[in-house]
Amino acid sequence: MTLTREVPILPLQAALLFIDVQNFGADRKGAEFAGLSESELEQKYGWYFDRLENHVVPKMQRLQAASRAAGVEVMYTTIESLTLDGRDRSLDYKITGFNVPKGSWDGKVINAIAPVGDEILLPKSSSSVFVSTHIDYILRNLGVRQLIISGLITDQCVESAIRDACDLGYLVTQVTDACLTYSQERHDNSLRAIKGYCRQVTTDQLVAELQDVAAGV
Amino acid sequence: MTLTREVPILPLQAALLFIDVQNFGADRKGAEFAGLSESELEQKYGWYFDRLENHVVPKMQRLQAASRAAGVEVMYTTIESLTLDGRDRSLDYKITGFNVPKGSWDGKVINAIAPVGDEILLPKSSSSVFVSTHIDYILRNLGVRQLIISGLITDQCVESAIRDACDLGYLVTQVTDACLTYSQERHDNSLRAIKGYCRQVTTDQLVAELQDVAAGV
Amino acid sequence: MTLTREVPILPLQAALLFIDVQNFGADRKGAEFAGLSESELEQKYGWYFDRLENHVVPKMQRLQAASRAAGVEVMYTTIESLTLDGRDRSLDYKITGFNVPKGSWDGKVINAIAPVGDEILLPKSSSSVFVSTHIDYILRNLGVRQLIISGLITDQCVESAIRDACDLGYLVTQVTDACLTYSQERHDNSLRAIKGYCRQVTTDQLVAELQDVAAGV
Amino acid sequence: MTLTREVPILPLQAALLFIDVQNFGADRKGAEFAGLSESELEQKYGWYFDRLENHVVPKMQRLQAASRAAGVEVMYTTIESLTLDGRDRSLDYKITGFNVPKGSWDGKVINAIAPVGDEILLPKSSSSVFVSTHIDYILRNLGVRQLIISGLITDQCVESAIRDACDLGYLVTQVTDACLTYSQERHDNSLRAIKGYCRQVTTDQLVAELQDVAAGV
Repeated sequence: MTLTREVPILPLQAALLFIDVQNFGADRKGAEFAGLSESELEQKYGWYFDRLENHVVPKMQRLQAASRAAGVEVMYTTIESLTLDGRDRSLDYKITGFNVPKGSWDGKVINAIAPVGDEILLPKSSSSVFVSTHIDYILRNLGVRQLIISGLITDQCVESAIRDACDLGYLVTQVTDACLTYSQERHDNSLRAIKGYCRQVTTDQLVAELQDVAAGV
Repeated sequence: MTLTREVPILPLQAALLFIDVQNFGADRKGAEFAGLSESELEQKYGWYFDRLENHVVPKMQRLQAASRAAGVEVMYTTIESLTLDGRDRSLDYKITGFNVPKGSWDGKVINAIAPVGDEILLPKSSSSVFVSTHIDYILRNLGVRQLIISGLITDQCVESAIRDACDLGYLVTQVTDACLTYSQERHDNSLRAIKGYCRQVTTDQLVAELQDVAAGV
Repeated sequence: MTLTREVPILPLQAALLFIDVQNFGADRKGAEFAGLSESELEQKYGWYFDRLENHVVPKMQRLQAASRAAGVEVMYTTIESLTLDGRDRSLDYKITGFNVPKGSWDGKVINAIAPVGDEILLPKSSSSVFVSTHIDYILRNLGVRQLIISGLITDQCVESAIRDACDLGYLVTQVTDACLTYSQERHDNSLRAIKGYCRQVTTDQLVAELQDVAAGV
Repeated sequence: MTLTREVPILPLQAALLFIDVQNFGADRKGAEFAGLSESELEQKYGWYFDRLENHVVPKMQRLQAASRAAGVEVMYTTIESLTLDGRDRSLDYKITGFNVPKGSWDGKVINAIAPVGDEILLPKSSSSVFVSTHIDYILRNLGVRQLIISGLITDQCVESAIRDACDLGYLVTQVTDACLTYSQERHDNSLRAIKGYCRQVTTDQLVAELQDVAAGV
C-alpha cells in the first residue's frame, strides 16, 4: 500500500488530464468574454491572458509532449453540453448561464494543445469532471491510478477535480504552473487549500521526471 | 408520493430511451455477425432478424413518433467506445471481445429510428447504461422521473438498464414488444424476472396513452 | 489484462459477499412472511424453506469457513433502512412495501452465518447493492477485484449485484448452489441469463479451490 | 426552473447536514489532537477551540433547533471507518493517517448537537460526503433539493461537500458562521472560493428565515 502522495509517475498507470483548456475560456474571442470591449477585456482579464499565453500554455505544451513521449495517456475535458440548447447541463451551469453548445467552436480544446490520434475527450457540464462524466469508470478501465492535472481554472474546475480524484483513491499530481485562474492570489490560495490532497510540482520538475522515466533512468 | 408503478406518462417528466438499436447488432451486416455465412446467420439469427425487421423496428418507429409528438424527450444509447482501440471499455467487454470503435458505422443508430435535431445520444461500453454513462446525472438535469424503455437485447442491456433505473427511483415503463432478444423463451423469461421493477405495456397501449396525453384527453 | 472470466480466486484481491441472508426473508418468522398462516407459508414457500434450510445455508456456512480460512474478505449486505420509518428507502421499496427498520431483528444476518470480528456489513434499501451503498468505493479501498457472490434471491438482488459488479470491472464468481429463489425454474432461468457476466461454480468447486489456495497448492 | 441560488428554504424539500462535528476533531480530547501537550494544543488550536466552543457550536445548536422546528430533515456525517482497523478507508485517509474506528467515541457527534430520534447519520471515510457515502441516493429518496451546510472544517470536508452538492443539482445554503477551520484567513479564503457554488448566509439570517417559514409568514 502506497502511504505517501510523493510518488513519481509510472507511465503505464498514469494519465494527464487537461481541464477546460478550450476556446470558451482560453481564447480572447471565447464566449466567456462575449460583450466585453477590448479595453474591458484588458482591464478585467489582462493579467490572465498574459499569464496564459506567455507562460501557462507553453508549459502545457511541454507537459503534453513529455507525457506522450513517456507513454502517459493524455486526456481532455471541456465544458460542452450534449445538446445545442444546453438542457442537459447542471442546475449550477444553468444558473451561472454557461452554455457551450454541442459541437461549437467554444467547446474545442485550443489549437496549441489539440488532441491527436486516439486521445480521449470528455465533454462535461459541471465543475468537477467526476460528477458530469464517467471518467472514474474510464480511468479504471485504463488501469490508471495516478492522475496528472493541468488546466483552468485553478480554484474552480481544477480544484474540484483534484478533491474528487483524491477521495476516489487516485494519486494526484497537480502541475502548479500549468494551472491558472484570474488572479495570483486566488491561484495561491487554492494551491494552499488543496496541498493535502495531492502532490504539487512544477512543469520543470514533472517534465524532468517523465524524461527520466522515458529514458529508463 | 407515488405508491404504484402503474403511472401514465407525463411527457414533461418523461424520456424514451432506445437501447443499442444500432448497426452493430441490429443490421445483418453488423460486426456482431461478422464471419457468419448467410446460412449460418439464417440458422442462428433467422428468428431474431425476422422479428426485428418485421415487428419490433416498426413498433419502435411508432413509439418514437408518438413520443416526439407528445413532447417526450427521445434519447439513445449505443455500444461505442470512446477510442478506436477500445481501451476505455469495461473489462467485461474486453473479455467478451466487443469493440465498436468511436465513430464507426457499427456504432450508429439504425436509419429507421435515427436521432434528429437536438436529441441526446450516449455511447456506452458496458451492459447497463447507468454504469458507463452519466445518464442518471442527465436525466436529473432534464427533470425526468419516468423512463420508457425499448431496445436490444431484452435480457442483457435492456434488463440491466431497467433494474438500475428502478433502483435509482425512476418509474420505468418497459414497452415489451419493442424489446427483443435471441429467442422468445429468453424474452419471456426476462419479462417475468423484472416485472416487479417496472410497468410493462405494449406499443399499442403506450402509443394510445401518449396520443391521449398529446390530445389533452 | 485478464481476458477470461474463468480466473481462480486470489484471496488477497477477493471478497465473498453474502446478499440478504437475513431474518426478514430467510427465517420463517421474518417480516416478509408476516400474516401467512402456517399452511399458507408451507404452500407458498415450502420448497424455498426446505431448500434454504437443508441445502443452501449449509453451503453458505462451508463457503464462509473456507473464505475465512483462505484470507478472503467476508462481507454482508442486508435490506435495512437507515431510519425506523424507512423514508430513506428507494421509491421501488416504498412501492413494494418493504421496510426493514434500522436495528430491527429482521435486518440481522441469520445466526447460521453471522458476521464475526471486524467483518463489514452494509445495509441497503434497493435491489442492487451497488446503487444504495458505496460498496464499489469500499472494494476499491480494500483492493478487491474478484467478487464471490452467494445469497438471496437469485433472480433479484443477487442478479442485480452480479450485473453491476461485472459492468464495474469486477471478476464475479457466482456460487450457484449457494444462491436461492422461490422456484427451481426461476433460479435456473436467472443462472442462464447471467452466465455471460460471471463465472458460475458450485460450493464444492469453490471450497476446493479455496482450500488449494490456502494450502499453497 | 430555478435560475438563482438565492432561494429561501422550503422545509419539505430541505435538509440540514452537519459535517464532522464529532469528538475526533471537535473535542480537545479527540484523537486528532492526541499527543499534544496542553500548551501545544493551546498554541496550535487555541483560536480554533475558542471559536468553536464559544461561537460556532452555539450557532449550530440554534440552527439545529430552528431546523427541527421548521420540519427540515437534520442529518449528520462523521469521519468513521466501517471497520476497527480502517482498511475500508480511502487511500487518502490511509496516507493522512486518519482512522476513526467503527463505534469509537471519536466517531460520535459531540453531545451539544447529538442526533435524536430517527435522524440520519452517515459515517464516511473521505473528504467529500458524496464520495464515500450514498448520500445523493438518500437525498433523492427523501425528496431533498436544498441542502443547508454547517460543520468542520470549512476548507476541507465542508468545501468538498458544497462543491459536489452544487454539481449534483442541489441548491446549497452554507451557514458561514456555523462552519470553522483552523484560521480566519483559511476560512475567509474558502468562503470566497466557493461563493459561486452556493448561497452564503449567517446563522441569524437562516434562523430568522426558518422561523418565518415555521410561522407561516
